[in-house]
Amino acid sequence: MQRIVVLAGGIGGARFLRGLKSAVPDAEITVIGNTGDDIHLFGLKVCPDLDTVMYTLGGGIHEEQGWGRSDETFAVKEELAAYGVGPEWFGLGDRDFATHIVRTQMTGAGYPLSAVTEALCDRWQPGVRLLPMTDDRVETHVLVDDPDGGGRKAVHFQEYWVRLRASVPAHAIIPVGAEEAKPAPGVLEALAAADVVLFPPSNPVVSVGTILAVPGVREAVAASKAPVVGLSPIVGDAPVRGMADKVLAAVGVESTAAAVARHYGSDLIDGWLVDTVDAGAVPEVEAAGIRCRAVPLMMTDVEATARMAAEALALAEEVRA
Amino acid sequence: MQRIVVLAGGIGGARFLRGLKSAVPDAEITVIGNTGDDIHLFGLKVCPDLDTVMYTLGGGIHEEQGWGRSDETFAVKEELAAYGVGPEWFGLGDRDFATHIVRTQMTGAGYPLSAVTEALCDRWQPGVRLLPMTDDRVETHVLVDDPDGGGRKAVHFQEYWVRLRASVPAHAIIPVGAEEAKPAPGVLEALAAADVVLFPPSNPVVSVGTILAVPGVREAVAASKAPVVGLSPIVGDAPVRGMADKVLAAVGVESTAAAVARHYGSDLIDGWLVDTVDAGAVPEVEAAGIRCRAVPLMMTDVEATARMAAEALALAEEVRA
Repeated sequence: MQRIVVLAGGIGGARFLRGLKSAVPDAEITVIGNTGDDIHLFGLKVCPDLDTVMYTLGGGIHEEQGWGRSDETFAVKEELAAYGVGPEWFGLGDRDFATHIVRTQMTGAGYPLSAVTEALCDRWQPGVRLLPMTDDRVETHVLVDDPDGGGRKAVHFQEYWVRLRASVPAHAIIPVGAEEAKPAPGVLEALAAADVVLFPPSNPVVSVGTILAVPGVREAVAASKAPVVGLSPIVGDAPVRGMADKVLAAVGVESTAAAVARHYGSDLIDGWLVDTVDAGAVPEVEAAGIRCRAVPLMMTDVEATARMAAEALALAEEVRA
Repeated sequence: MQRIVVLAGGIGGARFLRGLKSAVPDAEITVIGNTGDDIHLFGLKVCPDLDTVMYTLGGGIHEEQGWGRSDETFAVKEELAAYGVGPEWFGLGDRDFATHIVRTQMTGAGYPLSAVTEALCDRWQPGVRLLPMTDDRVETHVLVDDPDGGGRKAVHFQEYWVRLRASVPAHAIIPVGAEEAKPAPGVLEALAAADVVLFPPSNPVVSVGTILAVPGVREAVAASKAPVVGLSPIVGDAPVRGMADKVLAAVGVESTAAAVARHYGSDLIDGWLVDTVDAGAVPEVEAAGIRCRAVPLMMTDVEATARMAAEALALAEEVRA
């Protein structure tokens, strides 16, 4: 059985995983999930990326939105607003709240996040082994021009992304706590045992980049004997989804498929898929020592996504050979 | 302005307070609320009696049920059950959950329950000053025959009351933590400044009795120069609501209006109202040194309840004179 390890962010990572499962239903897939955008809201621990993967693969996701639960209601949020308790810009629905209540109760009782995630997945049966990148608290902060004027300030990634819609210039991305974090149990073991490692078209800075910032993870990926293949989140010089261009700029990386490949670098990735519209970038990526192919990279449905996953696995075999 | 202090439990206390406010809209009413039936559920701090008072006087109560919120939905509860997280026997609705989330967040941030209650009341504007009896943790436990067989065990009051429906014999009522508890800020001051102290027809053991179990409270009521008048929760040898007879039996008190008056005793109460059907008990109560009148005591609507409150205040004036 093929052992595949995927470093995943939220929506993009989750949708890619659905395609991957469809492409290789018998593979043993381990997902190392980003927890840098975790946030404490209303005293509850919210893990947006882990939940998006869990809900998407478990059949509970709000399909159109890409995050949160289907058939959602908002009574709790309404009531919190009536109490004057914010923030109001983070849209937690009633069903979603239950997940955070269970998680918070378990972490409060002393369970590490990895154990909590496993318990939550007992219900959702995502068909992959979902591991948080770390059990330690890491919070991605973004250094921005203060929207209220006068200088710069660091805000939580969710505040930058959800409240400010990435509309203010970002000058730095800081994964607070990452330096002291340890990979969660199973993370390094999964990387060591992997037949293939994949970077889905997730945000290379605040999703995959944050996972790689946990000491030991980047090293384990780089040291892996398995082929490491990534899929470009940038298609035609713009992010397919989200605002990856803004955070790429903050770390001094151009928003092109080739620049992201060079940002990861040939010490980390062996192969890179760009979209057919970026076929012209293939020579540049290969010149950087990374095997590159141009294939359709739009995750329009599960079938198209499965084809992308199959292309990534084919490129991995090509690299291995 | 007349200063009235009321020692209140849940449904009965809350409905009595609504009648009292209607009878004397200009009075300054301080409510000392029972927190002995508080319970931690799903990691959240739930204060059923405080909330019942707050929701009832603030217009948010589920009228027919007597507790919980009106227009309630149960998405969170459904989801918790889907996660296999219990207990399922405690019916928390989505709107109600928001209250417990706010409370838990505030207590987690270090605010005492009295400050949290004040903050919650900012929204509900109950028209009374609602004080928890204590900021310390007190939990009423009930010693019962183990429903699973073999001996006795202590269960949380809510488990006895809500899950077991008081259907197993109760041998003792233990307000765990009460001995070490201190009255919340304002409790003793309110009693010292009171013009009248009222015991509504709340449960004399697990509601009023628990409040009196906080060291200093019974003494302050007994020492008060203000008339102390109670209303019998027992009408015609049966509790008007709930299962007060079961917990009265556990403390060796007969379920009669006169026995409850004697249980409080003339060192605590100066006046006692019994229902007209219990008019025969008046001489027995008066023989115990407690002024007693028989008046209708069924809280069928706000008007009837207001008349009860007015009778209690009239009896207080009679005692004072």
